[in-house]
Amino acid sequence: MKQIFYELVLKTKGLGLYDFTEQAKKFVDKNKLSNGILNLNILHTSASLIIQENADPDVLDDLNIFFKKLVPMNNKLYKHIVEGKDDMPAHIKSALTNSHLTLSVKDKKIILGTWQGLYLFEHRIENQTRKISCHFVGQ
Amino acid sequence: MKQIFYELVLKTKGLGLYDFTEQAKKFVDKNKLSNGILNLNILHTSASLIIQENADPDVLDDLNIFFKKLVPMNNKLYKHIVEGKDDMPAHIKSALTNSHLTLSVKDKKIILGTWQGLYLFEHRIENQTRKISCHFVGQ
Amino acid sequence: MKQIFYELVLKTKGLGLYDFTEQAKKFVDKNKLSNGILNLNILHTSASLIIQENADPDVLDDLNIFFKKLVPMNNKLYKHIVEGKDDMPAHIKSALTNSHLTLSVKDKKIILGTWQGLYLFEHRIENQTRKISCHFVGQ
Repeated sequence: MKQIFYELVLKTKGLGLYDFTEQAKKFVDKNKLSNGILNLNILHTSASLIIQENADPDVLDDLNIFFKKLVPMNNKLYKHIVEGKDDMPAHIKSALTNSHLTLSVKDKKIILGTWQGLYLFEHRIENQTRKISCHFVGQ
Repeated sequence: MKQIFYELVLKTKGLGLYDFTEQAKKFVDKNKLSNGILNLNILHTSASLIIQENADPDVLDDLNIFFKKLVPMNNKLYKHIVEGKDDMPAHIKSALTNSHLTLSVKDKKIILGTWQGLYLFEHRIENQTRKISCHFVGQ
Repeated sequence: MKQIFYELVLKTKGLGLYDFTEQAKKFVDKNKLSNGILNLNILHTSASLIIQENADPDVLDDLNIFFKKLVPMNNKLYKHIVEGKDDMPAHIKSALTNSHLTLSVKDKKIILGTWQGLYLFEHRIENQTRKISCHFVGQ
């Protein structure tokens, strides 16, 4: 059994979805991973990880707009306002989406559908440095 | 360490939840899997995977109705409308639920609560053929 | 390959988030787990598992309040009302959050960000006894 750990660092510049599919594929290639589980955990509670369509960028915009409406940046709605008007909405959006993705690797490739990409969903306004724990268990 | 990969195909006929617990159990039985991780990934971004109550079918209807109200099929709300009024809502509903389920297998059985079933949540109106990647790692 | 199974039992007293990070760490310590996957599944469909901020308790209150507003306890909205006004909303909140968490263990520690804690999100009003399946695969 082979186990590989790696911390992927991504820079974000405000609300929205950031494609990191290529970085995940590079991790698999570089370490010559053949078959196993690739477990990804974001180490923050104000950004999340999701799989989404990688074809039309409008999909990513619409997702961002939907979540902004569903979870308004309005300090009157929340008790936790010390870290800015975007912080509590960021925690809620994280709860509504996902903090981790557990992927399968087969024959040296991450199993994904044709139109699927891996995204970091940033919920904070200011620039951030985000860390994703990458952990492979397999052969 | 034993690894088994399988692609489960499900036909869906419109919005709603489709129970595939039996198919997942058959995969475990047929391959004589004893103990390990069963990782399920749906290979689409307009349908999702969730665990829900398997007792009262009204629960499944109510879930469907709730998500339809929360994410309206109204082209005025979205930029991405080329694939039909149900496509962008389908991507949003996928983001709000889950693209994968990571289950545990113990003594040849998937660990599930008494009232838990595995469901594909279809978010498109038209008939679809959906693929779920099934991957076992264990003994 | 080492596999350990354990059923963690938590008592809850109404709606809200219950921190079980320490119990999960104890499971890792007690079994001397070094490196591997820790898969957690809640065995119920009216409570869920999420990772959230462990610093300011107001964050937990705001999360609870947001979900209560988003999914009202109003019998007129649902068909499934036989188990009480909180039951159908509980199933919906479970679908909107998560039934499982798949964590990585490295050098005898669960990989978590500084401000991340593991929470059971209780969606029922009455006192409950909740079971979480803990399954480790690794070394």
